[in-house]
Amino acid sequence: MQPLALPDAASRETLLTRYAAVRAHTRSLAADLSAEDQCVQSMPEASPAKWHQAHTSWFFEALVLRTLQPGYRAYDERFFFLFNSYYEALGPRHPRPARGLLTRPSLDDVLAYRAHVDVAVETFVRGCDDESWCVAAPLIELGLNHEQQHQELLLTDILHAFSLNALRPAVLSATAPAAHAVSPLRFMAFDGGLREIGHRGADFAFDNETPRHRVWLQPYALADRLVSCGEYREFIDDGGYRRPELWLSDGWTLVQAEGWRAPLYWRLEDGTHFTLHGTQALRDDEPLCHVSFYEAAAYAQWAGARLPTEAEWEAAATSGTALRQLFGTAWQWTRSSYDPYPGFQPLAGAVGEYNGKFMVGQLVLRGSSHATPRGHERASYRNFFPPSARWQFSGLRLARDL
Amino acid sequence: MQPLALPDAASRETLLTRYAAVRAHTRSLAADLSAEDQCVQSMPEASPAKWHQAHTSWFFEALVLRTLQPGYRAYDERFFFLFNSYYEALGPRHPRPARGLLTRPSLDDVLAYRAHVDVAVETFVRGCDDESWCVAAPLIELGLNHEQQHQELLLTDILHAFSLNALRPAVLSATAPAAHAVSPLRFMAFDGGLREIGHRGADFAFDNETPRHRVWLQPYALADRLVSCGEYREFIDDGGYRRPELWLSDGWTLVQAEGWRAPLYWRLEDGTHFTLHGTQALRDDEPLCHVSFYEAAAYAQWAGARLPTEAEWEAAATSGTALRQLFGTAWQWTRSSYDPYPGFQPLAGAVGEYNGKFMVGQLVLRGSSHATPRGHERASYRNFFPPSARWQFSGLRLARDL
Amino acid sequence: MQPLALPDAASRETLLTRYAAVRAHTRSLAADLSAEDQCVQSMPEASPAKWHQAHTSWFFEALVLRTLQPGYRAYDERFFFLFNSYYEALGPRHPRPARGLLTRPSLDDVLAYRAHVDVAVETFVRGCDDESWCVAAPLIELGLNHEQQHQELLLTDILHAFSLNALRPAVLSATAPAAHAVSPLRFMAFDGGLREIGHRGADFAFDNETPRHRVWLQPYALADRLVSCGEYREFIDDGGYRRPELWLSDGWTLVQAEGWRAPLYWRLEDGTHFTLHGTQALRDDEPLCHVSFYEAAAYAQWAGARLPTEAEWEAAATSGTALRQLFGTAWQWTRSSYDPYPGFQPLAGAVGEYNGKFMVGQLVLRGSSHATPRGHERASYRNFFPPSARWQFSGLRLARDL
Amino acid sequence: MQPLALPDAASRETLLTRYAAVRAHTRSLAADLSAEDQCVQSMPEASPAKWHQAHTSWFFEALVLRTLQPGYRAYDERFFFLFNSYYEALGPRHPRPARGLLTRPSLDDVLAYRAHVDVAVETFVRGCDDESWCVAAPLIELGLNHEQQHQELLLTDILHAFSLNALRPAVLSATAPAAHAVSPLRFMAFDGGLREIGHRGADFAFDNETPRHRVWLQPYALADRLVSCGEYREFIDDGGYRRPELWLSDGWTLVQAEGWRAPLYWRLEDGTHFTLHGTQALRDDEPLCHVSFYEAAAYAQWAGARLPTEAEWEAAATSGTALRQLFGTAWQWTRSSYDPYPGFQPLAGAVGEYNGKFMVGQLVLRGSSHATPRGHERASYRNFFPPSARWQFSGLRLARDL
Repeated sequence: MQPLALPDAASRETLLTRYAAVRAHTRSLAADLSAEDQCVQSMPEASPAKWHQAHTSWFFEALVLRTLQPGYRAYDERFFFLFNSYYEALGPRHPRPARGLLTRPSLDDVLAYRAHVDVAVETFVRGCDDESWCVAAPLIELGLNHEQQHQELLLTDILHAFSLNALRPAVLSATAPAAHAVSPLRFMAFDGGLREIGHRGADFAFDNETPRHRVWLQPYALADRLVSCGEYREFIDDGGYRRPELWLSDGWTLVQAEGWRAPLYWRLEDGTHFTLHGTQALRDDEPLCHVSFYEAAAYAQWAGARLPTEAEWEAAATSGTALRQLFGTAWQWTRSSYDPYPGFQPLAGAVGEYNGKFMVGQLVLRGSSHATPRGHERASYRNFFPPSARWQFSGLRLARDL
Repeated sequence: MQPLALPDAASRETLLTRYAAVRAHTRSLAADLSAEDQCVQSMPEASPAKWHQAHTSWFFEALVLRTLQPGYRAYDERFFFLFNSYYEALGPRHPRPARGLLTRPSLDDVLAYRAHVDVAVETFVRGCDDESWCVAAPLIELGLNHEQQHQELLLTDILHAFSLNALRPAVLSATAPAAHAVSPLRFMAFDGGLREIGHRGADFAFDNETPRHRVWLQPYALADRLVSCGEYREFIDDGGYRRPELWLSDGWTLVQAEGWRAPLYWRLEDGTHFTLHGTQALRDDEPLCHVSFYEAAAYAQWAGARLPTEAEWEAAATSGTALRQLFGTAWQWTRSSYDPYPGFQPLAGAVGEYNGKFMVGQLVLRGSSHATPRGHERASYRNFFPPSARWQFSGLRLARDL
Repeated sequence: MQPLALPDAASRETLLTRYAAVRAHTRSLAADLSAEDQCVQSMPEASPAKWHQAHTSWFFEALVLRTLQPGYRAYDERFFFLFNSYYEALGPRHPRPARGLLTRPSLDDVLAYRAHVDVAVETFVRGCDDESWCVAAPLIELGLNHEQQHQELLLTDILHAFSLNALRPAVLSATAPAAHAVSPLRFMAFDGGLREIGHRGADFAFDNETPRHRVWLQPYALADRLVSCGEYREFIDDGGYRRPELWLSDGWTLVQAEGWRAPLYWRLEDGTHFTLHGTQALRDDEPLCHVSFYEAAAYAQWAGARLPTEAEWEAAATSGTALRQLFGTAWQWTRSSYDPYPGFQPLAGAVGEYNGKFMVGQLVLRGSSHATPRGHERASYRNFFPPSARWQFSGLRLARDL
Repeated sequence: MQPLALPDAASRETLLTRYAAVRAHTRSLAADLSAEDQCVQSMPEASPAKWHQAHTSWFFEALVLRTLQPGYRAYDERFFFLFNSYYEALGPRHPRPARGLLTRPSLDDVLAYRAHVDVAVETFVRGCDDESWCVAAPLIELGLNHEQQHQELLLTDILHAFSLNALRPAVLSATAPAAHAVSPLRFMAFDGGLREIGHRGADFAFDNETPRHRVWLQPYALADRLVSCGEYREFIDDGGYRRPELWLSDGWTLVQAEGWRAPLYWRLEDGTHFTLHGTQALRDDEPLCHVSFYEAAAYAQWAGARLPTEAEWEAAATSGTALRQLFGTAWQWTRSSYDPYPGFQPLAGAVGEYNGKFMVGQLVLRGSSHATPRGHERASYRNFFPPSARWQFSGLRLARDL
């Protein structure tokens, strides 16, 4: 499994320290959620928080402990079936839309499973021979990045479930973060020419970020910040959701079929939106979030601009130019379909199913959101979702030809 | 609201004693279910156990306390919306297929709500004036019978949810009840002629059992016991699920669309079925359960018999003839559509939505099941479900023309 | 096949004369429809006019000629598959929702098929021995009644297809029939007691009208005419489609899901409706047509009345009392589910699938409509459709308890 | 409307000659189809042949005659509604899935409409002033290319309809084309580097082929011919449709949901497939056709190869290297999502809806098929369909990294 880079300073203790930190963060995210909260699944695309906690443990068990630890004794053999997500190579699994039916195992049982796996991983890392270590280290690193992805998904998914409950509970503390002061949006120019994009170096990256390769870019400009809620409201007020000429055909069909009139969690009637901190007043200076690719593209069309390609985004992000809100605010829809890079090869074995088999029918998002774990983002990161997805923390940055 | 009979010995304390007993039984049924278990909804037709516990309390609050108790202070005003089932007269409500999303209020909160309502009902009953009492008493009696219906539904619904979980948990203790010795099935003859069916007397009955009225019956015979699992297995072995000539047209369509090969919880490959006591070996001498009307009718056709009409069933059940398993084993599908009785009038007010508005597209079941609360059954009882329903405790008794 | 009565004056020539008349009427109904018109299927429940013409010929071929005429040579063996409707006993068949795909065989081919069958039936009837004749005669009579049913369906189905075409073509001549003078609606009283309903005598009837049997009726009253469009418009104007308390639960769900605001072919915005004679002004004095059972029942509820049971309808229709519009105006929804009569036995063989297997989930309509072929109606006739069906010529007559 | 190039030799008569030829070809394609055949729509994605004939005329009427010809008198104003395909800018339209309901206007009427439009276009072209001519000429050229696209669609769509008819009629003469001798498949190498793709020059091209732009390619190889049926049969025999590791995730889901076991029109049980020439024996040496993108990608995976990108395909096709079957055999799925080219601008006005609004969720196919009109293909042509589409004449050519 050569494409997986060894972690920085590959000492076993360093990795165990990082392992402990990531695993603890997952638990802390769910700490204020009750057992009931953690069991719910509000739509087939979302998963229960308990399932996220179990599946991220399953990952280490299925891909490291079961294959590399001689005599490994599973916490419960049936979990191998229950908490497989989509790995065909690892056999049948509990159906995805029915994850919310798993009232058993209980949350306590899942937390015990997590603890069991944690002990087993620690024991394994400290005791395995060097040959096993060379195989295991990149898999554990992959597992930690995998868990960080699920940390964000845990928040997006419970937010969706809570949004459908008339009690409108807050996922996190009810204190909303401080206001964003919006400065006038400026377009920053970037030269065209031959550029390189994709992951480089020994640090961890997912296989879909490789290989690094050359692309030819035309000169272009990117907005120095994300579109704000106030700007998007102008689009709405200008009839944005009623003007087919602004929309891609599939998007327009969806607008009509679903009756979209605003971003997913907006309530136009009282000027609020639903957030991780519960219902909050919509502020014009906030960055826009929870729009689909269709809405992002329609807004850009209305604004006389367009969405950036992923290559433009990455070239700009690594250029040193002072673009704001690249990371930590909202994922940014690009105008790039999620296609394989030239020369792309998925990882060997079951982990090869991680990214490659989803490379059709999705759009690339770049950057990261306020729900992305710190340290998980990077300029070459390729997030991807179907163009209709709105429950992610997804916004947009405008682009223009020069 | 004259059609509601006053309870036996209409003293207030007698009713309170009965109230306490019924309410306690609901709690006891759910006592071994975790908060997670009580939150799950496995299909739109089923409801979470927590919802059943809350809705049965809502019934007393919405129909008695809010209307008759001056100054009644609700436990939480929002519950009036959350736990309305289908009463259009009482305003909008949380959507039925989304009951499983209600992780909040928590189970503890719902139990506190139950306690709040119990105290309020007790206070009201002891303190109200006679005029209010005359209105309230039949409503409370209706509420208790309503709660008893939900006691059975709570079991059918959680059984369905557990059946979809690979861990196959047991709802009740894992000890299966003792075996049934099956005696040879005999048909008992009944004379035809003019008979009366429907509820009579001052005891409680639902409005759909009234008015008592005359029907003309041809001579007929009923089996003295229910069809057993062994008998049904012969039907399966004889190609019952592959022979369209045995089926009603809609049933045959469903057999093919859903791939039915056996009753809902049977597993032919290992000779087991899933029950309230977990997975159990299928015994030939057990009464058949969890079949749809379509399957019941196809079996009867195969057996050279037919299903009884509801009038035949009721006339026989009140005849004094020694029919077994009338009550307490499995609900018995009849060949009668759930139509209104001649002269039927729904109750006045919101409780008029209880039965009448469902009188189309359903079939009548008679008797009661092993999951029906003791004391809740009677010969005039009209249970009803769509012909495709299999998750109820439903079996069949054969009938023949004479 | 004893239940099929021999036709009146069972001479072979008499039957052939009738055969020729019925067959010619089918052709005449379709005479003004182009080959394209006759090929279209506007929904799964409807069939193309060409298919109706072919299937009614298939009936004689499949059930008479193939089984009773030695050496019968089919027009085209493949038609046996293409034009079977739902007879499981006669093997697989072209899928019902795809009947509109049958551009081949052409209309000319189907008309040649009809002619081929007509010649073969005539030859058979004149030449068969007495034993065959006794078997064939009731089957041919059944086939003619079957064809008469399809004559009405041909009209209902093409009307539905044309209603979806912005050109709004007229099925029949564009001259609307003369106006109906509406007299004040009066309720006629009928005694209760023991009555007999169901078919009696040697004339033809479908198996579902038998056996004749006794029923007990309470005293009741029936309106002396059907509900008019003007009366129904008052229901609409009074918010009939917005008041859940008037509706059966399934009906209310459908009203909301489908956005019903008026009968199927009404256009409230310009006061017209679409008819066999094209778009026509809605006249208050016309009998109401194209309502579902749900609408009929809601209207009756609003009017402080109810729908009659089928036994009430039949007893009244045979009582000699001067009820108007019993036949020839619009089918009349009853409050009776389509259940088997006591002692009902379907015909033996494939024709046993004609009625019995549909006896669940449907409601009985009585009388006949302006599209029913003359001579086809009778008081014991049981028409049946699902409660949601609106494309039939279905109206209603009010009833009341006395 | 500057992006539309003026046609070669822009004389009016030259264009009229070409106009007459293209229009005549449409009629000739449908000449052997009956009026019934031309009315049928077998799925929402397909359209009736009559509709294709009408819509291609509507295009000239709506975009040229109505806007540029003073006093133009429409053949029938209602056709403007009936035969609009998807142009939101031109108002509401008959719903796409209901095109098969249009038995009226009749085929004769549509042919008269075509003739009316032809006369009007001819009159307009000969009589308009130069200013109008400059606007009209590119629109007419677009209309002719549009009609050529519909010529192919007419064949794909009627083939699909006929495939669902047990009579299995032949669209074209029942004589299958001569056999293809398959030579061993060879991979031809192509250098990487900076290349230009996209339309260049004054000849007609669709807007989605522009602007011409630079792309960077890695060295690669392309198969010198398309995959054959015999080669694909090896994939099937090797369990291709049962091995999830070969499939993209969405493709595998579809394989299971739809029960795919072979290309759309193959019948494995008797070794035939359904073609424009009716049912024919499958020959190993034929080029594969009627596979989805998912099947193409799975086959490539199985074969240890991949699909080419559209840039690779175009660069190779214009390189002078002797690749066979580039055009005229089967459209070739590429690994490129249908994204806009850098700097892409849709045409102004209603024709801007032609391509741009479909640029999401589809994959690019290159080349042309045996059903593409001669003269319509070119190396920069970007055909596009959803990855699940199988009813087009779509095959594949393998590619490899070097």
